[in-house]
Amino acid sequence: MTKLQAFDVLFRKIEAVRHISAALAVINWDALTTGVPEKSLPAHGATMGWLSGELFSLIVSPDSIESVETLEALDSELTANERAMTREVGRRYRKLMAVPPDEFQAFNALAAQAQTVWETARAKSDYDMILPYYEKMFDYQRRLCDWYGYSKHPYDALLDDYERGADVETLDRFFGALREKIAPLVKKIGANKEKPKEIEGLFDIGKQKKLMPWLTDFTGYDRARGKTGEVEHPFCTTINRHDVRITTKYHEDNLLSALFSTIHESGHAVYEQNMAEELERYGLADTPSMGVHESQSRLYENMLCRSRAFAGRLLPKLREQFDYFSGWDEDALYRAINIARPSLIRIEADELTYSLHIMVRYELEKALMAGEIQAAELPGLWADKYEELIGVRPENDAVGVLQDVHWSGGAIGYFPTYAVGTAYGAQFVNAMRKTVDVDGCLEKGDLAPVNGWLKENVHRHGAVLLPGDLLKQATGEPFDPKYYIDYLGEKFTDLYMV
Amino acid sequence: MTKLQAFDVLFRKIEAVRHISAALAVINWDALTTGVPEKSLPAHGATMGWLSGELFSLIVSPDSIESVETLEALDSELTANERAMTREVGRRYRKLMAVPPDEFQAFNALAAQAQTVWETARAKSDYDMILPYYEKMFDYQRRLCDWYGYSKHPYDALLDDYERGADVETLDRFFGALREKIAPLVKKIGANKEKPKEIEGLFDIGKQKKLMPWLTDFTGYDRARGKTGEVEHPFCTTINRHDVRITTKYHEDNLLSALFSTIHESGHAVYEQNMAEELERYGLADTPSMGVHESQSRLYENMLCRSRAFAGRLLPKLREQFDYFSGWDEDALYRAINIARPSLIRIEADELTYSLHIMVRYELEKALMAGEIQAAELPGLWADKYEELIGVRPENDAVGVLQDVHWSGGAIGYFPTYAVGTAYGAQFVNAMRKTVDVDGCLEKGDLAPVNGWLKENVHRHGAVLLPGDLLKQATGEPFDPKYYIDYLGEKFTDLYMV
Repeated sequence: MTKLQAFDVLFRKIEAVRHISAALAVINWDALTTGVPEKSLPAHGATMGWLSGELFSLIVSPDSIESVETLEALDSELTANERAMTREVGRRYRKLMAVPPDEFQAFNALAAQAQTVWETARAKSDYDMILPYYEKMFDYQRRLCDWYGYSKHPYDALLDDYERGADVETLDRFFGALREKIAPLVKKIGANKEKPKEIEGLFDIGKQKKLMPWLTDFTGYDRARGKTGEVEHPFCTTINRHDVRITTKYHEDNLLSALFSTIHESGHAVYEQNMAEELERYGLADTPSMGVHESQSRLYENMLCRSRAFAGRLLPKLREQFDYFSGWDEDALYRAINIARPSLIRIEADELTYSLHIMVRYELEKALMAGEIQAAELPGLWADKYEELIGVRPENDAVGVLQDVHWSGGAIGYFPTYAVGTAYGAQFVNAMRKTVDVDGCLEKGDLAPVNGWLKENVHRHGAVLLPGDLLKQATGEPFDPKYYIDYLGEKFTDLYMV
Repeated sequence: MTKLQAFDVLFRKIEAVRHISAALAVINWDALTTGVPEKSLPAHGATMGWLSGELFSLIVSPDSIESVETLEALDSELTANERAMTREVGRRYRKLMAVPPDEFQAFNALAAQAQTVWETARAKSDYDMILPYYEKMFDYQRRLCDWYGYSKHPYDALLDDYERGADVETLDRFFGALREKIAPLVKKIGANKEKPKEIEGLFDIGKQKKLMPWLTDFTGYDRARGKTGEVEHPFCTTINRHDVRITTKYHEDNLLSALFSTIHESGHAVYEQNMAEELERYGLADTPSMGVHESQSRLYENMLCRSRAFAGRLLPKLREQFDYFSGWDEDALYRAINIARPSLIRIEADELTYSLHIMVRYELEKALMAGEIQAAELPGLWADKYEELIGVRPENDAVGVLQDVHWSGGAIGYFPTYAVGTAYGAQFVNAMRKTVDVDGCLEKGDLAPVNGWLKENVHRHGAVLLPGDLLKQATGEPFDPKYYIDYLGEKFTDLYMV
């Protein structure tokens, strides 16, 4: 195969992947924003499955790997984009080929079944129901570690699958620092008798909606290159870089929920909208990892918009809609949007405690993959770790070990990306502050310099650079969790005067 | 190739076509109900184009025709479904192969360009702008007649493409009868000084919407197996037979518009929902022709719901929402939903005059394809025919020869399906009346026996039977326009006492 033939094969496949992925994204958007008629669920699933199968077949075919190997042999002749394209297709091919097809089929069937069982098990808080499924699933995942391969710890194989370059060695350091610095702070705050004023009462959803255009414009999300919708669990989805959609769930009794989840999804969306156009044909208008994507959403949500400076911009906007805020000042609002408290449920956790929830899962997954603990022990270990790290103990498994869907779906190694991504975000903001007056931008209500920095240093690069290289190039040093730990520690020590 | 291999090839292709078509339908629904961001239009078009190209490639490939030929040779061994599947795939392959690829590409480019030019030409009422495009388009269509082939009249090739079995001989008889019986009636009514009372004023759109669930339920449309949306130009689209969607456009100043267009789209939707499940794998859960599909929408809209009996059901429902109708009686409402008047614009035409608008286009297309007239003569001929047949003459081309998009898009031979379909509808209702008390059903507000008849005799058969065979099986005789002509003549003679 010649170089030209190899490019031709890969460009055609990448084009096909792009269009099929766009179709899947629209079908999924349609399903999540307006529902699927119940009787249509099998046909809907069949169409999603068929299209996904086409994506699989495009990668897992002899001409894919022949093209990749042809280009790998010519490595020195390739441009950065060509090299990254070759790397990504090769990686996907090898990952998919590493798993014996019958095992992969059995896994898919198990995951589908286990997720249904999990819903009932959680509803009934009955861990025994899901236990046999977890046992099979963890067993499969341990074998997956072997198929993927690792040099030090089996869990490394799964970590790297979700977050390129992540391994037990790095994450042990990361979570170790959290354990040392953040866990005690959470307990101190939990013990603090003086509580900040909370935003309470009912907030008309129509008025909440009126805030959103201002809010998404503020983050730099280009509303003319996307759409918005309402769903049960908010998400961001990309049809193409000029059609990036975000969703919101409004709660009449929780004003902050829609506000900050919209900022979060806008952060994801700005990233997608800012990827360089020329990356599309290489299949690189994508993120290099889940953590990098999460770094952008959390950076906008927390480091930018849960700041004292943003509270100053937000208060007059809230007052325009809600008389409730006439008696509030900026400091009180700043405190109210940063209430930290020990809690049981990850998805409701605040900025400070969030990564401790992840740590519980990280430590359990690590021990499971090393064969040091068994699935049957999880409920007890879970409760112990919550008590140890966060200072609360679940009364039942529904609010404990059964709260997340991930394990039943086979996503072991996924959780850490949430925490690592947030830490990337802190490191990006730290570097940005060297040349951008971030607080000044937030006070003036003009994030253009912030967005400009992110576009230049993160967004436009898509999946060309791996997370480690992206961080090094953008911040001048490798990933270092200290920026995140320091940021959290300083912010919340100051807020709670502990 | 063995019989089993041939089935395997075709079943796989039909499955792929089904899923890709579902994806295209959802993407199109999404675009029409919520819009495409302007900057995303090229990417949206590229995805639609790529998916359509996949559909094309599935049919136009050597294994398609090899499979078809293998099964054609075994004809006597095939079941009805297998035979119809073979017939339909073979037909599609041969149609697509009949056109030289470079001519097909040139046609697509011309059509895209011409439709854009047409929009401006219509807006400016400037026929000279579109003339060179029409000349090229009609020239292409005349060559298309040769590529498709015909035995008597070149136009037959195009007619059959849109409406299987339709030809100049049949349609001349059909339109001849319309000219003889309906055109004079339209003129008589136009000359009638006594005009029926019209529904006038503004009707709250929120209240209009409240009528819709009752209305769609009445037609037998299963709302649990679909969705509804609002668009500029209402349509019905099928994702799968359990997800059939209808759309409406509400006009505050035109109550009847949304009501009857919703009934029309429900008629299309009921047909789709009632197709037999087992036809799906053969690719036959589809209509055999545009005319048969239109027969169902027009049958519900006109023959069923513009009846005296339905006016009796409708009036109390209108009164629930609008005080306006307190002074109305059923007869007045019946007359108001059946106002007939000579008019210039096809898509706004009433039940009586509609087919005369089609006749103008039929006669012009026929003469164009025979080379008897030239594109440059169309504006004058158009105006003359409107005057002759309907008794009105357009003041300019915007409301005359430039009103329809079809010719710029290359859809020559399409118009007659609207009229022929309506005539099929009349023939179906006539046959149904032999065993179903249609007026009784409408009076009682229970269309179950009507829907049952249609499901049994029309809907469930999908594309297994060609239109002519479907009519023969359902009504006991071949297509005969007399039922339509008689129905129109009697209804409007009686209504207008002329």
